[in-house]
Amino acid sequence: MPVNLTQPLAEQLLPVKGVALGVAEAGIKKPGRKDLLVITLAQGSKIVGVFTQNRFCAAPVLVSREHLQAKLPVWALLVNTGNANAGTGDEGVDHARQTCSALAKLLKCDPRSILPFSTGVIMEPMPVECIVASLPRCVANLHENNWLKAAEAIMTTDTVPKALSKQVSINGAKVTITGIAKGAGMIRPNMATMLAFIASDARVGLPVLRSVARRAADDSFHCITVDGDTSTNDAFMLMTTGQAQMPEITGINSRESIIFRGVITEMAQWLAQAMVRDGEGATKFITISVEGGKRHEECVKVAFAIAHSPLVKTAFFASDPNLGRILAAIGYAGIADLDVSKISLYLDEVLVAENGRRAIRYNEADGQEVMRKQEIRIRVLLGRGSATSKTWTCDLSPEYVKINSEYRT
Amino acid sequence: MPVNLTQPLAEQLLPVKGVALGVAEAGIKKPGRKDLLVITLAQGSKIVGVFTQNRFCAAPVLVSREHLQAKLPVWALLVNTGNANAGTGDEGVDHARQTCSALAKLLKCDPRSILPFSTGVIMEPMPVECIVASLPRCVANLHENNWLKAAEAIMTTDTVPKALSKQVSINGAKVTITGIAKGAGMIRPNMATMLAFIASDARVGLPVLRSVARRAADDSFHCITVDGDTSTNDAFMLMTTGQAQMPEITGINSRESIIFRGVITEMAQWLAQAMVRDGEGATKFITISVEGGKRHEECVKVAFAIAHSPLVKTAFFASDPNLGRILAAIGYAGIADLDVSKISLYLDEVLVAENGRRAIRYNEADGQEVMRKQEIRIRVLLGRGSATSKTWTCDLSPEYVKINSEYRT
Repeated sequence: MPVNLTQPLAEQLLPVKGVALGVAEAGIKKPGRKDLLVITLAQGSKIVGVFTQNRFCAAPVLVSREHLQAKLPVWALLVNTGNANAGTGDEGVDHARQTCSALAKLLKCDPRSILPFSTGVIMEPMPVECIVASLPRCVANLHENNWLKAAEAIMTTDTVPKALSKQVSINGAKVTITGIAKGAGMIRPNMATMLAFIASDARVGLPVLRSVARRAADDSFHCITVDGDTSTNDAFMLMTTGQAQMPEITGINSRESIIFRGVITEMAQWLAQAMVRDGEGATKFITISVEGGKRHEECVKVAFAIAHSPLVKTAFFASDPNLGRILAAIGYAGIADLDVSKISLYLDEVLVAENGRRAIRYNEADGQEVMRKQEIRIRVLLGRGSATSKTWTCDLSPEYVKINSEYRT
Repeated sequence: MPVNLTQPLAEQLLPVKGVALGVAEAGIKKPGRKDLLVITLAQGSKIVGVFTQNRFCAAPVLVSREHLQAKLPVWALLVNTGNANAGTGDEGVDHARQTCSALAKLLKCDPRSILPFSTGVIMEPMPVECIVASLPRCVANLHENNWLKAAEAIMTTDTVPKALSKQVSINGAKVTITGIAKGAGMIRPNMATMLAFIASDARVGLPVLRSVARRAADDSFHCITVDGDTSTNDAFMLMTTGQAQMPEITGINSRESIIFRGVITEMAQWLAQAMVRDGEGATKFITISVEGGKRHEECVKVAFAIAHSPLVKTAFFASDPNLGRILAAIGYAGIADLDVSKISLYLDEVLVAENGRRAIRYNEADGQEVMRKQEIRIRVLLGRGSATSKTWTCDLSPEYVKINSEYRT
């Protein structure tokens, strides 16, 4: 059961002018599961991406990057689940190209106008024939109202599809944004393991779009972790069709650009948090604020040391205020000149530790009460500067182990 | 059930001339559990230590380091379980000093001749009175044959005591070494979470002893990980009483020194591996060899990325050869210029991946057969140099989560 996250309704997801979506059951996954998605973009659309940093990046990542570099208009995105096409060498790259060519033939465009994305099991040969055979069905049911079906088609161990729409007024023009994402395990910064696609009808210049994508990712997908694993396949794609009636947003720091970045960041944060809420086996949603650091980077280090500690995570699962484990994680986060006697720790509003030790007024019943909640905030004050960070994570339950032990069965 | 590790027998543990051990039930832990240990060292003994790198190091670590710096002869080590005396601030330091003073009074020595060690729950006030009240019982039962009782008295979540003796001939003189250790979870390099005490009757100069301790730790305790957590309290202490009939070992690279280092390293490796074998919830013992790196440090990075990946660990628990997860971990280990097309991966003798992709001859039944074993070797060939590393770890099972959820109950 995800933590405070419910199934979106199809009617809550707004169509984005110029974007159509078609899905199919290609038989890559178990029968009865949608596993293939085509997203087409109308002429004049723009797209930018943030890709995984994993050196073992998968064939579709290599091919998508190469196709983007060709600087042709992007006609469509082709996404499959059930197979990651990673650790598959040159053959995997050929397979990714074959699926692009097949879709290009159907859409009558250059194969480099197709961007491929895959997610699923690593190091298995790609069932190219199933995909190619199912593409005509995807194309036949392309429709601008298919966002929910699209969100379902990219799910892996997700228990609910993740999708959201927003509308915002930019200089009087109504702009629509709809986004979908998948991700539940193997989650940590640098796009892992997740796919997110956010589309808008706004008219946005390419430099602004690039800047917005990067900064939105920094404040969302790069702030979450479930288990610290970084995947081979992942990407966040931001696309605009330019079909809203508005002048193009150009200046990176213009008022319009800031409004647009704000709404994209909100959407990305919601999708990123949805992944944590649906984190494999998660029963708690935990926000970690680190304040008073010398630099942002050291705050992030402290936050991830806490977020990745299996001992902290199991204590949260058990609702056990064994909070010394948080202090231990701060201590090994890698800040060489950390003065622990300046550190304070809050759990929601409860002061747990001050001056690097158990707070004199702290009483375990108060800690216990917070630990029982489903949404908990850990606040660490480092007392050495004014930098801050915010990170979202979940607890570690026996269910996580079960899901990942049985992933392929 | 630990992986291929059985309870040692008291008669297998050899007394070390000049070392006596006394234990008691001080009531820090549940009734019926030994939780207090005193180890005394005869006059003329030498002792060196390797301590935790955690910035939140516990009060006993601070006090032990300070007492060592006083350069007085060390008369005794005082070890308790059940409470870590960490995150306890100045009061914790006072408590550690009080226990040292109480033991010093009984032994009639300077309090700085006592080194304190604690392990257990973090951020709880230390039950000083229980400890002080039980010290006379420890002192009353001091005996050179108490090594097994000592190993039992330092256990936390360990399911078996960890102890070993060896004898070696150095230039015709018989040298005896006996060691004990505790550790089962929160295990990673830099002494976490573990205590290890190795004693010998050898006559060894202090510079040699320092060098041996550091190098033995590098090749043993720094090569293991269970869950990646680094504790606040941990230490490896190496002590010699000098009571064997032999000339003092002085040159760091002398033949005698190399023999001594060899046997201490073997003991330390056995104790380190015993912690992994008894790792919380462990069902598999995994050796990770990384070869062909440019530097040792990058091999270690790759090994720990694999060893810390919850996805790799759960696949091993499930005996599921989902080995792409190992490639993904290699890819995010942080080697920026890694050429994945040069990487090979073996599971025992089975070639799983070559040239960065699934090996052509690899067949899953072979991988499956290896995955079913209790002891498995992962061998990664990076193909970029001649550096190597060796690391030991275990799998991740639901039992790990259960143990750490219920640790304080």
